[in-house]
Amino acid sequence: MSPGPKSLAMFEQLTAIQECSSVHFFVDYHNSIGNYIVDADGNRLLDCFSQIASLPLGYNHPAILSALSSPQNQSVMANRPALGVLPGTDWPDKLSFIMDKMKPRYSSALSDLWDITTMACGSTANENAFKAVFIKYMDDHRGGEPVSQEALNSAMLNKAPGCPHLGILSFSGAFHGRTFGCLATTRSKPIHKLDVPHFDWPMAPFPNLLYPLDQHVEENREEEARCLEEVRTLLKDSRAGLMTSTIAGMIIEPIQAEGGDNHASPEFFRSLRSMASEFKIGFIVDEVQTGLGATGKMWAHEHWGLGEGEAPDIVTFAKKAQIAGFFSKKEMRPREGYRIFNTWMGDPGKMLMLEAILKEYEKCDLIKNTSITGDYIKEGLMVLKKKHRKM
Amino acid sequence: MSPGPKSLAMFEQLTAIQECSSVHFFVDYHNSIGNYIVDADGNRLLDCFSQIASLPLGYNHPAILSALSSPQNQSVMANRPALGVLPGTDWPDKLSFIMDKMKPRYSSALSDLWDITTMACGSTANENAFKAVFIKYMDDHRGGEPVSQEALNSAMLNKAPGCPHLGILSFSGAFHGRTFGCLATTRSKPIHKLDVPHFDWPMAPFPNLLYPLDQHVEENREEEARCLEEVRTLLKDSRAGLMTSTIAGMIIEPIQAEGGDNHASPEFFRSLRSMASEFKIGFIVDEVQTGLGATGKMWAHEHWGLGEGEAPDIVTFAKKAQIAGFFSKKEMRPREGYRIFNTWMGDPGKMLMLEAILKEYEKCDLIKNTSITGDYIKEGLMVLKKKHRKM
Repeated sequence: MSPGPKSLAMFEQLTAIQECSSVHFFVDYHNSIGNYIVDADGNRLLDCFSQIASLPLGYNHPAILSALSSPQNQSVMANRPALGVLPGTDWPDKLSFIMDKMKPRYSSALSDLWDITTMACGSTANENAFKAVFIKYMDDHRGGEPVSQEALNSAMLNKAPGCPHLGILSFSGAFHGRTFGCLATTRSKPIHKLDVPHFDWPMAPFPNLLYPLDQHVEENREEEARCLEEVRTLLKDSRAGLMTSTIAGMIIEPIQAEGGDNHASPEFFRSLRSMASEFKIGFIVDEVQTGLGATGKMWAHEHWGLGEGEAPDIVTFAKKAQIAGFFSKKEMRPREGYRIFNTWMGDPGKMLMLEAILKEYEKCDLIKNTSITGDYIKEGLMVLKKKHRKM
Repeated sequence: MSPGPKSLAMFEQLTAIQECSSVHFFVDYHNSIGNYIVDADGNRLLDCFSQIASLPLGYNHPAILSALSSPQNQSVMANRPALGVLPGTDWPDKLSFIMDKMKPRYSSALSDLWDITTMACGSTANENAFKAVFIKYMDDHRGGEPVSQEALNSAMLNKAPGCPHLGILSFSGAFHGRTFGCLATTRSKPIHKLDVPHFDWPMAPFPNLLYPLDQHVEENREEEARCLEEVRTLLKDSRAGLMTSTIAGMIIEPIQAEGGDNHASPEFFRSLRSMASEFKIGFIVDEVQTGLGATGKMWAHEHWGLGEGEAPDIVTFAKKAQIAGFFSKKEMRPREGYRIFNTWMGDPGKMLMLEAILKEYEKCDLIKNTSITGDYIKEGLMVLKKKHRKM
């Protein structure tokens, strides 16, 4: 479908004030409903795109509209607070509610270990997750000794020892965002990275599996073993000082999205987790795209069957949650205030939406529904594949 | 004032799930009004803090509440779009309105040169301003030649030539945000930077002036000349390849806020602007804290008396605007789509608030009022200073 005349006229208007060649068409959000998006020219389309996977309940859902129209909530939105210094009286309850409904769960022993930090978007969630990992790494390094004056002085000049040469390991095909910290871990397409200075952080291969998975068990096991071996080599090289930056953490998506629909086995991820523990580095799971029920569980990494001591150190989220941020183990908490901090620290207005979304998930059993619908679509795709297989 | 018992109880609740030692007290936003903030225990305080300078009309302003309660606007908030691909039908008009009311103005010849790009917060505004500067710098370098395959390949590995060793020059005492790109230009306090890896970008001295300015004209002129000379030396060193990163742009606040209430003369800033042109690098003015009328003009840098050819290349904003982003000269526009891009590209819900704010500014002549009130407060402070001067 090409954009209609009204979309084209708006496109011309917008082109006068910004580069907007990425715009597909203009949307009549007032008249879009459920899974159907309506464009400026009145065309109604089935929306499988969901605003880059960030719209969990479809358009104009009554639960969201009702949350936004309550007068009590309007004063929350009208007075955007600096949450790190002046949170509202209902903020601790809101955060506790979110924790209760959506924190990652594996077994009772593992499920209560989490802090929550809120941010405005996926990139700032990941950037601050990296900062938490670096601060923890250097805290461990100091072993309780106070920060030296030399470190404080050199930090102001962007130099070691205050600004150490630490890095985050990421995987081929990964997408973790576009700000300068995130971008150094993003490995999906050159267009994101070209012309921009980058931290010289290392990359490991993400398994390149053969599908269908159940028909290639042996080859895929070998491919995953090869990737794990490369990760181990990088971690050993880092420990031996052979790299320009010492690896303080690794970040991975449970399913690669932007980099292609790339999967790996639960064993692969559990092995990475265990290697991170062995080398005493942070293990960050990026659930910005996969989280909030997209895989039939609240978090995709809940499919890994994690046991005692295997929980990630940090799990980041954004998109469908409307608000962004991360869950983190208690030991990732900085010793001082203002270290993971910014003006807004997220947005209580978006938290109202997340609250409504989570209640609706529960009321309509939507995560289970995703699982059922997912199976149905996959089955249909398999039938189509058989039917249209090349001879 | 110490926090009351209700704030203390909430503090305990919040401490269970996050590091929150930066929290001052908990706020009853529903009952706060105008300049008065009400805490959890019912204390009413005159608020001179304004949520880290981000609340332009005070608490529960009727114009904001009315914008948020209109049903048409609620569908804007309920359906947060990916603005870079699927903006709403009213988005071009909203952006045009914002441009009309708040784009920087100097003389008629200079005032129509701007593009606008929206983001979610001050840090992402600055990070993307840096990216725009780097992309422009490398576009100029290529001089119309296509991007080489070597550049595309090396970009995926975080290496030159795809990821060139470029940097942004910033000034001592500067604050430009806390994500990894911004943080490399922030120079206010070690606590922001400690333990975090940094780009090895250069720093120039911000003038350390003597106050009152009118009693130290000669010394201050010398101090500014010294700082300008250091900037020139850094730019020459960069051009000669003597630095680890080549300077592609500089960023400066018209008044340093976080780094202390530090001023410099219009001549100083105009000299920097001219040096940026001479060395063919981008000149970014960070108005995140100073913008939206705080200095008696819409933008603090409008006080510099800029003439033809002296407009900044980019002006960034956030805080009081609720939405963030930047204005930029047409020649800063990337040649390709998706280069300055992310999932949300700002938030139309916040744009509704900005629209209401700008209308209220105009209706009540609030920027002029800031100027009058500012003079009144300054005069009072001078009287207090004389009265309490050390003997």
